Amino acid sequence: MIYLGIDLGGTNIKVAAVDAAGKILAESARPTNLPRSAEAVADDIALTMEAVLLEGNFAREDIAGVGFGCPGMVDDEAGVVLYSNNLAWEDFDLRSYLKEKTGFSIRLANDANAAALGEALVGGAKGAHSAAILTLGTGVGCGVVLEGKMLTGYTGAASELGHMVVHADGVPCTCGRKGCLESYVSATGLIRMTKEAMEENPGSLMCEIAKEDGRVTGRTAFLAKEKGDIAGSEVVEKYIHYLAIGVANVVNIFFPEVIALSGGVANEGESLLVPLRAEVAKMSYGADHAKKHTRIQSCTLGYQSGVIGAAMVCREGEQA
Amino acid sequence: MIYLGIDLGGTNIKVAAVDAAGKILAESARPTNLPRSAEAVADDIALTMEAVLLEGNFAREDIAGVGFGCPGMVDDEAGVVLYSNNLAWEDFDLRSYLKEKTGFSIRLANDANAAALGEALVGGAKGAHSAAILTLGTGVGCGVVLEGKMLTGYTGAASELGHMVVHADGVPCTCGRKGCLESYVSATGLIRMTKEAMEENPGSLMCEIAKEDGRVTGRTAFLAKEKGDIAGSEVVEKYIHYLAIGVANVVNIFFPEVIALSGGVANEGESLLVPLRAEVAKMSYGADHAKKHTRIQSCTLGYQSGVIGAAMVCREGEQA
Repeated sequence: MIYLGIDLGGTNIKVAAVDAAGKILAESARPTNLPRSAEAVADDIALTMEAVLLEGNFAREDIAGVGFGCPGMVDDEAGVVLYSNNLAWEDFDLRSYLKEKTGFSIRLANDANAAALGEALVGGAKGAHSAAILTLGTGVGCGVVLEGKMLTGYTGAASELGHMVVHADGVPCTCGRKGCLESYVSATGLIRMTKEAMEENPGSLMCEIAKEDGRVTGRTAFLAKEKGDIAGSEVVEKYIHYLAIGVANVVNIFFPEVIALSGGVANEGESLLVPLRAEVAKMSYGADHAKKHTRIQSCTLGYQSGVIGAAMVCREGEQA
Repeated sequence: MIYLGIDLGGTNIKVAAVDAAGKILAESARPTNLPRSAEAVADDIALTMEAVLLEGNFAREDIAGVGFGCPGMVDDEAGVVLYSNNLAWEDFDLRSYLKEKTGFSIRLANDANAAALGEALVGGAKGAHSAAILTLGTGVGCGVVLEGKMLTGYTGAASELGHMVVHADGVPCTCGRKGCLESYVSATGLIRMTKEAMEENPGSLMCEIAKEDGRVTGRTAFLAKEKGDIAGSEVVEKYIHYLAIGVANVVNIFFPEVIALSGGVANEGESLLVPLRAEVAKMSYGADHAKKHTRIQSCTLGYQSGVIGAAMVCREGEQA
């Protein structure tokens, strides 16, 4: 089986032909070139799809399905992108438009949900009964997959774990609420905490590292900690504390088999995961008596999770 | 179709014969009489089941299934109660024991999950695509039902929404964590907030009302508010603020069609629900662009939700 996966972002249109195991057989990309009309972007998506067919030397009948990961709120039943802030789309009937242009009928999913499905079917959570994926980037992208199906809720907009308040009346979030998980555990949140600590500790190694790099990044505090900086260690501990609260909440709500992390901060790997697991274990409800425990690990699909996940939308409902 | 529903609590064993619409046709109850052995309790459950058959004049073959709602952590696949703090049970093979005693093979669920399933199939959320139920009592009982199925997770212990931290490092919870939703929105949490406000405002009407009642209850602040007491109003506002945070988190995580409240505090009805809905609407992610919205309402099965929900475990997977 060969599927097309389309990953539409504010910067790039990416399309890949992917087999059932998640292996990319051919791919093509071009810039999204915003701002421009939804139709103009969709025309370029159709061209990119054709390019992948050519690249892989596939006939149209080789393609078992086309999955589409789109930022924002989508309605797969109707085939419509209800709203995308990134793309400035509202109520765009993407399925009909692409059907007319390409002959293919797409399955539509939110991009973070699609990426989570990819990790659950062929990535870090492959074979798991259930999985929650947290992508720790500029924001916090999230998806929950239960028995092979994306959790999309009544509206198609579920699984927004990043907008779960973990600190009532806390730090303002971009969404307008206060104290959302995203404000603490995104790279943006980590950078904010790092800057606050640097101001309070002008002698900290973090200040030197940031000066060398020319900016504060999500790595600054971790690097300082590695070199024994106390203020840096405190930032990392604080960050992991909030991440543990969020992850433990996800355990208590879903008790998934796997929680997998991706995104820039997750690249810290075991130096993040080891203390995280220890703290989450203490916060998991009934953990002393449970026979099974949620595994906390890294995602494996990396920057390709978008197209692979989009392709896997065609396999939704199957359990790997 | 007639089902038997068994609702086992620390105080009473309740059994009812329930039809597919959730109507109770016959019922019987007897005290749990703790502390005593799991076998002794199960023997009395078997007797109560026989009493219901007699009471309803049912033949054994009239019974299409037996559902069991048990406090604590259960494994329906194995038919085993893994752990129940209330009952002091650990790894009790309830299905085998009752099968031998009664000839009936039970379906096993956590009691709060079963009650939620009852509300979703035949109660306040009947016909809904998905529902989350919060019972605001001594603790916060929770259940999530997605397309007719209880969310039980990898371990059988999911849906513990009350143990979602909403205030990092906040008020200590009975579970050992800090800042769990339960610590703020249970009747116990409301009483704590009421007592704190009474200490700070010794002239408040709340003090008079509590004196008349001989104690502080979950109603004290609501009653004072109704009579124009400012400190009482502030307690109610604070309570509703935390409840709104928890409910909005459930919206952003699950986007269920219905969130329904039950338990003592929920009896305040619209005077609780109207301000709650207004606050949740402001906190729901993407609410401006969604075509559908979560309905927030009351449960309808009342104190019978336990036995009715237990019976409905036999109908799990059907959507009413």
